[in-house]
Amino acid sequence: MGVEAENRSRLTQKISEVYKQFGFEPLETPALENLEVLFGSGGQENEKLVFKTLKRGDKLQSALEQSGTELADLGLRFDMTVPLCRVVGQYKDKIPMPWKVFHIGPVWRAERPQKGRYREFYQCDVDIIGAEGVGSEIEVLQAAGHALKALGLKNLSLRVNHRQLIDDIAKTAGFQGKLEEFSILLDKRDKLPTEKLKAELASLHPESKLPEIVDRLLENNFSLEDARSLNQQCADSIKNLCDALSALECGYDEVSFDCSLVRGMGYYTGLVFEVMHSGEGYALGGGGRYDNLIGRFMKESIPAVGFSLGFERILLLLQEVSSRSDILFVPVMSEETRTGICKLAQELRQAGVAVDVYPGNSKLKSQLKFASQKKYRWVLIAGESELESRELKLKDFETGEEEVVLQGHLASHLKSRCFPAK
Amino acid sequence: MGVEAENRSRLTQKISEVYKQFGFEPLETPALENLEVLFGSGGQENEKLVFKTLKRGDKLQSALEQSGTELADLGLRFDMTVPLCRVVGQYKDKIPMPWKVFHIGPVWRAERPQKGRYREFYQCDVDIIGAEGVGSEIEVLQAAGHALKALGLKNLSLRVNHRQLIDDIAKTAGFQGKLEEFSILLDKRDKLPTEKLKAELASLHPESKLPEIVDRLLENNFSLEDARSLNQQCADSIKNLCDALSALECGYDEVSFDCSLVRGMGYYTGLVFEVMHSGEGYALGGGGRYDNLIGRFMKESIPAVGFSLGFERILLLLQEVSSRSDILFVPVMSEETRTGICKLAQELRQAGVAVDVYPGNSKLKSQLKFASQKKYRWVLIAGESELESRELKLKDFETGEEEVVLQGHLASHLKSRCFPAK
Repeated sequence: MGVEAENRSRLTQKISEVYKQFGFEPLETPALENLEVLFGSGGQENEKLVFKTLKRGDKLQSALEQSGTELADLGLRFDMTVPLCRVVGQYKDKIPMPWKVFHIGPVWRAERPQKGRYREFYQCDVDIIGAEGVGSEIEVLQAAGHALKALGLKNLSLRVNHRQLIDDIAKTAGFQGKLEEFSILLDKRDKLPTEKLKAELASLHPESKLPEIVDRLLENNFSLEDARSLNQQCADSIKNLCDALSALECGYDEVSFDCSLVRGMGYYTGLVFEVMHSGEGYALGGGGRYDNLIGRFMKESIPAVGFSLGFERILLLLQEVSSRSDILFVPVMSEETRTGICKLAQELRQAGVAVDVYPGNSKLKSQLKFASQKKYRWVLIAGESELESRELKLKDFETGEEEVVLQGHLASHLKSRCFPAK
Repeated sequence: MGVEAENRSRLTQKISEVYKQFGFEPLETPALENLEVLFGSGGQENEKLVFKTLKRGDKLQSALEQSGTELADLGLRFDMTVPLCRVVGQYKDKIPMPWKVFHIGPVWRAERPQKGRYREFYQCDVDIIGAEGVGSEIEVLQAAGHALKALGLKNLSLRVNHRQLIDDIAKTAGFQGKLEEFSILLDKRDKLPTEKLKAELASLHPESKLPEIVDRLLENNFSLEDARSLNQQCADSIKNLCDALSALECGYDEVSFDCSLVRGMGYYTGLVFEVMHSGEGYALGGGGRYDNLIGRFMKESIPAVGFSLGFERILLLLQEVSSRSDILFVPVMSEETRTGICKLAQELRQAGVAVDVYPGNSKLKSQLKFASQKKYRWVLIAGESELESRELKLKDFETGEEEVVLQGHLASHLKSRCFPAK
């Protein structure tokens, strides 16, 4: 479990560095939000996802006594976008717009935990609030691409679509009045077998048939030219975004228009996008423009674009087994020598060597057994006589070799021979 | 709010680096724990502190139908120690002991929020599980001292006591059978006026009087010699710990025995300690030995020592206003130039300069107004003609001066003249 925490913190750090280089500011928000904030206007869908916390004290008592009263008042956030919008609504006058912001933290969803899917997981969002035009999409995706590159991820492809275009296709195909249902079904195209998906779409159609345009959509046989004949403005936005990101060489091997990309959330209003790992065939992140969501939290509407990275999948891809062999282990033979050893250890740490001094008072044999369980390779023997003579014994647990090193040479010896910089 | 997030993440990073240098492993645990874990055996005191989450779905339904059934099943952790002990109980066979571990994250307490006291706040714990003897206390306090030093904190003093000694004093003073109440009152000595505290202690005494030894305790007129006559072993432990930490020069200006130090939590069983900021007169952190707590989560007892830093107080002490003047701002005059500007910006970022490209399509005047709101000092003018001639204009918003810089020289110019390394 140490490995996971370490990998996650390394990831967070690298991503933060890249986002800061783009002028994005870090944001932290509390995990608990008022339920009205979480559910906003409607949002029945999300209501089931939320861990709600019970009211406390007198308020709980009176809620229990009056049946039908809501027993909960707060809930754990299920994404980072809702809290961000709440913050914008609350502090708008203090934030210079456009606000470039990133927001990393855990979110909670009350779903049945599965492999690779926990009730608590991390999200890493980057957003631009308060700007119109494709510049925000470019900036957010350029930054995200460089962040993924900085993590060492390769084989990334970016797919782009426009929500308005999906609606226009649906209308052309005769799904008026069922635009939302159409999108929801289309969004399942990677999960459902094609025949089943087609049957469900047909049953949604007023004439129970599947127009040719929908077939072409599902076969991804719908070009930007086709899109242009339907909605010139959408097609231009898509083209501008794709052209800019290809020219910027910011980590995506391939940038393409995908007319069937929906990106779940109902709140998107414009361009939507998804980053796929071509090798693994799954999405690492995605986002889009959501110009109406902030309006739920204040009187005016504010344009916004966001991109969210899925941490757990990136962690899986980057699975590195962090070996402990880059730490020097020092057993303590008698309590009288502890202070001397702790002093020596601190000298080495100041020189850049990580040192683990055994904290207990077990026999040497158990201490060495502990070192091998921890897979430590280098062990420093500093008993009373060694400390006095300043001639210490350095043991290599891999080869079994042992050598004597003068205390004054120890730091440089360890750094050049045992722990060379990576 | 960006400033706070940034300071906290800088803090976390520095503390983690120091703890890793000591061979401590990072641990992350989920925020939600089962209620039985949080409340352990008894712990009525903590029950009020916990945000409980409602059961969901059918389980909630049936709990609502049968009155008297617990409506909640999970709760947000109120400290980092209980989840740590749960992890030890659950994974003991996989963890080489002694386990040196650190654990940073938010905790939640359902108290009325006050200034400087939120319902969500961060704790940073460092623990050694599975080792007897004062070596663990030394290691934990040495590491914590160096961590505080790395943060730039000065004027730190360390106070040490032993829980057994408090019990022995209480017994000697005639408080048999009221040892816990005695400790709880003594723990309030910094909050209650002395006369009130004395009156409450006296009312606890079977003869309603305050024996002389308690007076001396409250006046801190109780030496290590006095302690030795009461409990030799405790006095020796205290002396060993104080001597070692003084010799190790690990960040504490003063290390002393304080017979009246209690450290709230009921679970401490041995040495307890507290780090004070001498200037501000408040504690930055504290901890102690808790040999019986893990026993709640498994059959056997496992010795343990921990130290917890209070993040919010450290943040207050380190309050730094993070200025945005270390970011170059680039307005975008027309959308046709955006890709060229984003490319140029990325070259500069690669050379180590943070660059904020304006993401929206506002007029230049609003973009410059934005720059001044953000307190940006350096602005790069890269219009169509500048991009073409590769002669860019660099404006200093502080002096109003403007100079022309060749694109090839821009990175080095910015780094030497505008953003010299700190």
